[in-house]
Amino acid sequence: MLVAHVRLNRIPHWHLRYDVRGASTFVAGVHKHHRSTTTHSTTAALRKTSTMPIPPALLTPDLLAPADGAYPQPRRGTLTGQSPPKVPTPTSVVEAAKRLAAWTAVDRHILPEHKVIGIGSGSTVPYVVERIVAQGKEVNKDRVFIPTGFQSKELIVKSQLLLGDVDQYPEIDVTIDGADEVDHDLNCIKGGGGCHLREKVLAEAADTFILVADYRKNSTVLGTTFPQGIPIEVVPFAYTKILQNLHLIGSPNASLRMAKSKAGPVVSDNGNFIIDAPFPEEIMKDPYTLLTRIKMLTGIVEVGLFCHMAKAAYFGNQDGSVTIKWHDGRIEKVAGNESAVED
Amino acid sequence: MLVAHVRLNRIPHWHLRYDVRGASTFVAGVHKHHRSTTTHSTTAALRKTSTMPIPPALLTPDLLAPADGAYPQPRRGTLTGQSPPKVPTPTSVVEAAKRLAAWTAVDRHILPEHKVIGIGSGSTVPYVVERIVAQGKEVNKDRVFIPTGFQSKELIVKSQLLLGDVDQYPEIDVTIDGADEVDHDLNCIKGGGGCHLREKVLAEAADTFILVADYRKNSTVLGTTFPQGIPIEVVPFAYTKILQNLHLIGSPNASLRMAKSKAGPVVSDNGNFIIDAPFPEEIMKDPYTLLTRIKMLTGIVEVGLFCHMAKAAYFGNQDGSVTIKWHDGRIEKVAGNESAVED
Amino acid sequence: MLVAHVRLNRIPHWHLRYDVRGASTFVAGVHKHHRSTTTHSTTAALRKTSTMPIPPALLTPDLLAPADGAYPQPRRGTLTGQSPPKVPTPTSVVEAAKRLAAWTAVDRHILPEHKVIGIGSGSTVPYVVERIVAQGKEVNKDRVFIPTGFQSKELIVKSQLLLGDVDQYPEIDVTIDGADEVDHDLNCIKGGGGCHLREKVLAEAADTFILVADYRKNSTVLGTTFPQGIPIEVVPFAYTKILQNLHLIGSPNASLRMAKSKAGPVVSDNGNFIIDAPFPEEIMKDPYTLLTRIKMLTGIVEVGLFCHMAKAAYFGNQDGSVTIKWHDGRIEKVAGNESAVED
Amino acid sequence: MLVAHVRLNRIPHWHLRYDVRGASTFVAGVHKHHRSTTTHSTTAALRKTSTMPIPPALLTPDLLAPADGAYPQPRRGTLTGQSPPKVPTPTSVVEAAKRLAAWTAVDRHILPEHKVIGIGSGSTVPYVVERIVAQGKEVNKDRVFIPTGFQSKELIVKSQLLLGDVDQYPEIDVTIDGADEVDHDLNCIKGGGGCHLREKVLAEAADTFILVADYRKNSTVLGTTFPQGIPIEVVPFAYTKILQNLHLIGSPNASLRMAKSKAGPVVSDNGNFIIDAPFPEEIMKDPYTLLTRIKMLTGIVEVGLFCHMAKAAYFGNQDGSVTIKWHDGRIEKVAGNESAVED
Repeated sequence: MLVAHVRLNRIPHWHLRYDVRGASTFVAGVHKHHRSTTTHSTTAALRKTSTMPIPPALLTPDLLAPADGAYPQPRRGTLTGQSPPKVPTPTSVVEAAKRLAAWTAVDRHILPEHKVIGIGSGSTVPYVVERIVAQGKEVNKDRVFIPTGFQSKELIVKSQLLLGDVDQYPEIDVTIDGADEVDHDLNCIKGGGGCHLREKVLAEAADTFILVADYRKNSTVLGTTFPQGIPIEVVPFAYTKILQNLHLIGSPNASLRMAKSKAGPVVSDNGNFIIDAPFPEEIMKDPYTLLTRIKMLTGIVEVGLFCHMAKAAYFGNQDGSVTIKWHDGRIEKVAGNESAVED
Repeated sequence: MLVAHVRLNRIPHWHLRYDVRGASTFVAGVHKHHRSTTTHSTTAALRKTSTMPIPPALLTPDLLAPADGAYPQPRRGTLTGQSPPKVPTPTSVVEAAKRLAAWTAVDRHILPEHKVIGIGSGSTVPYVVERIVAQGKEVNKDRVFIPTGFQSKELIVKSQLLLGDVDQYPEIDVTIDGADEVDHDLNCIKGGGGCHLREKVLAEAADTFILVADYRKNSTVLGTTFPQGIPIEVVPFAYTKILQNLHLIGSPNASLRMAKSKAGPVVSDNGNFIIDAPFPEEIMKDPYTLLTRIKMLTGIVEVGLFCHMAKAAYFGNQDGSVTIKWHDGRIEKVAGNESAVED
Repeated sequence: MLVAHVRLNRIPHWHLRYDVRGASTFVAGVHKHHRSTTTHSTTAALRKTSTMPIPPALLTPDLLAPADGAYPQPRRGTLTGQSPPKVPTPTSVVEAAKRLAAWTAVDRHILPEHKVIGIGSGSTVPYVVERIVAQGKEVNKDRVFIPTGFQSKELIVKSQLLLGDVDQYPEIDVTIDGADEVDHDLNCIKGGGGCHLREKVLAEAADTFILVADYRKNSTVLGTTFPQGIPIEVVPFAYTKILQNLHLIGSPNASLRMAKSKAGPVVSDNGNFIIDAPFPEEIMKDPYTLLTRIKMLTGIVEVGLFCHMAKAAYFGNQDGSVTIKWHDGRIEKVAGNESAVED
Repeated sequence: MLVAHVRLNRIPHWHLRYDVRGASTFVAGVHKHHRSTTTHSTTAALRKTSTMPIPPALLTPDLLAPADGAYPQPRRGTLTGQSPPKVPTPTSVVEAAKRLAAWTAVDRHILPEHKVIGIGSGSTVPYVVERIVAQGKEVNKDRVFIPTGFQSKELIVKSQLLLGDVDQYPEIDVTIDGADEVDHDLNCIKGGGGCHLREKVLAEAADTFILVADYRKNSTVLGTTFPQGIPIEVVPFAYTKILQNLHLIGSPNASLRMAKSKAGPVVSDNGNFIIDAPFPEEIMKDPYTLLTRIKMLTGIVEVGLFCHMAKAAYFGNQDGSVTIKWHDGRIEKVAGNESAVED
């Protein structure tokens, strides 16, 4: 019965609104469950892991070099023919903020019992992987990591972690991902990098979905700090019709995202086009309704609005603290992991 | 203002349900509009075209051969290296029924003033194209025809009609298409051939969307005569998760459609997988709600349920008559075009 | 028999090298044919068209606006939601050079009897379309234009020309395209924009393939002015293996092209990755052998080396003249169309 | 230097024909190398493994059930929503022959030191995986298995083996695959299932590539027992042009493979079309030349001719023996593994 509950939980909350129970009642129920159980256990776990000393060598590239793993070493040098991704000590305030958020989130949410872990995309994610690697080979050797795209696949492989697919592991313990902007209800815009379809699949497949970002992504109403519009992945042959429809439902400036390194529009990893659709604040205040309206249009593959999905968002601040917004409205502010700042 | 109205009309009706007005009121408004305007004009036009004599030579392949068109002849022989599609005189009752439905629908709905025409898929569609060709070169020479897939593209090209794309002509005058099953409200299942994404785009883009089929597709509740399930096009990497979710929402037998002419699953023309999801009658009675639930799942590209889209459905009967079901609930029964049966 | 010859001619020249006749003999034969026949006729045609007065209104956007065409007007405003492509009067020397090359090539090679015309990609191509439009509605109304990608499709549609597909018109009269670099034998590098697969199909399908570019693309050995490497479209899952193989056959710096407007690598319009592979001059001196070596690797979709395909290349110079390199080694220098420079 | 040699060896042999050395000399050199080294070691290894007793429980589905693996168990039930692939005891002569070939090949070529293993497609491959599983958890727990398609991915996952990608492991120790027909030189036709692109990548990436099949695939000249033609994967928009070219180079009946479970042509897992091109025996006698001619055509993604790639082919015979054809022309006939027949 518990299993049934957990599995149901994997369907996005908004889906359950069709349920016989009223939406608010149900969501409240979910909240209570989280409050009474999960949150407490993560707090307990936090005690165990958050003060874990970080070996000085952690951030050197050597730690990412081949070692005696539990599975055969990928024998290639680099995937791209370019130098491997480095996780240098952050020199800017923003980079330090990203690392703060990432490390704190990993310390609290990636616990030893978590075996299937989703790794998101974006500039904060290398710090997530760095911190997971720092948990040691012993705990990582029987974990599988599911990437949301090319970048996280590279990070996983280069860090000698075990790579998996979501069609093999459709149930994920924890997914940690970045975001382009997060509002006060933990709704967020994702898709600046065009990976939001895979990201949403991994977010939905996860028992716990956690956002990490720097302070600049911490917003009240979506569209404030990421004004370029909601990224929408669409089937190529339908894009003209979809643009017309988006113009009609309130985004007169919706337009196809054009590529810079090739001629014509950006093509997503799934072979589709991407439209960026800015909407006025009035509409952005209710992102779930907007998500529904766009998603129901014909030819839409996925909308870069993630509503009612995240359990918590970690924002690294300029002052070295971390602001944590929880899905139940609580806001926490903690001192950042000092190693993350000073190392 | 009329223009605004017409364009708005292009957004599927169900979309407008989010409107402040109640759905039924609005739909009623649409109905009235159709009744007072469009239906009347088609009836008038019907008088002009439905008794059009069909030249005996119509059904011979010669009529499809190159002629002095308004645009350069495609210089290839056949697209597939196989013999061109023939539209033989129907020998079976079912074929005759298909032709009856197709011819009657074309006579009533493809009028001289229609310049952009969507051509659907399926076994009834060759008769649609055949009847359009019979309207003569003069009326067809400044028309553009938009195909829903490989088959209709072939038909258009071989019939020396002018081919267009929906991204070039996002507003279509009339689209005529087949269906796998049609219920009493003109909701239908489509996608047995896996083309339902493009078919839905063309249906939605059309001012008037007409269904044609034989009597076996005429049903009351969807799933009765087409029990294999609702065809759902999904992103390949998400299919396991989607199957799980479909099982949860009432289709425990949903499964990936496997190919016969290649190893592994069927791949759609858009590079996606297709799931066939049968649901119990209780759920199938409300196809619009089901459509919404499935469509909102992550990784869904398109659902083969077309709700509130068709203006009329033409079913050829075994007795040579045609049953016409209208979107406002009216049911008409007319004697079929005799030529269609006996020729 | 003549037909047979012409059709055989459509297979790329290098293919014919497998023939019992020696390659040089055959190529010589082709040259003679061109010299004695085609070139003369184009010169004759040139007299007719090259002095065609250019109406002052030609370059205004109005000329591109909807008019009474031979086929239904596409009813959309813009494809991308952005302003339509403009062909302003060139203000820079480079732009003037591009226009010079484009206009001169169109005047010489797009003759009234040409009905199926391939339109390439790149910054010179808008001037090609501009000049074709200037030939007038009468000559263009029964022509079909085949695009090599999104940009040329937009240009064709916005210029109210009739759009076609290469699978419908696999035999093209003339294709005019740009290039990233052209050597002394008219071999060229293409694919900076990632469209070289479709471009090569259209080049190969054409009776006459013409290059247009500005003086900066005029080179002796490929790789001199376009050093970023040969663009190679590859199947995504094979790219690591292909990179290894490219490193082995002489391109140690071959690497995946990364996107700027999305995360991860550039994805082509066909859903593939693009590798840029620079080779040392020694190898670049024999581009046909290199093309063969790369093309034979498993997982290669197409190589951005076009060898023995172009009949002539037109380069606009800084001084207002046009240099024409012919496939038989002849080099011509003509005064540019004055209108092109001064207008 | 040895490493260099080995890596070079990964490039298909035919590629090396461009080398300064003559092809025959070089191939002879490769053969000698294999004869003196690899073959001997596999014979030695054979002694160790071929008499390995097969536990009676091996063929029961239970053995494939979840167990304490070295990595997290995939938590899903089945990928397709259908029952898991079973490897029942063969009841027909043909099935027994397939199992004979598969088991013998695994016993000889999948040695304990092999850590990265390619798993092919087709009806013989389940017996390959079955035999690998029988080698025990200990030896398999640090092996990675690379699939050639959906079927082998399913087999790997359901057998609780560790799944990998070829872009992660571009160098494979051994790949075992089926074939549609194998000639006397170990050239083969593959692609009846449309997976030949991925299959060729895995064959090429492997140090050792082994074919397994039943006696019906054992042929002298390709096209004898698999007359439907060479499967050729092509880019969709170029297929008309490619068909024209194939007709010209000797396959007048080349045609697009049409799907049965969807409308229109078969779409490959890579989103491409498949052409089946039968050639006359005269041309099929030199498959390498034919491969080159087809492969050099524009728009070809991969040709289902594998030339000079396999080291050995194992054919299970009706009488319970196994015929082994080696790449150096040697033919061996051995008594089949008795367990394979009688179990």
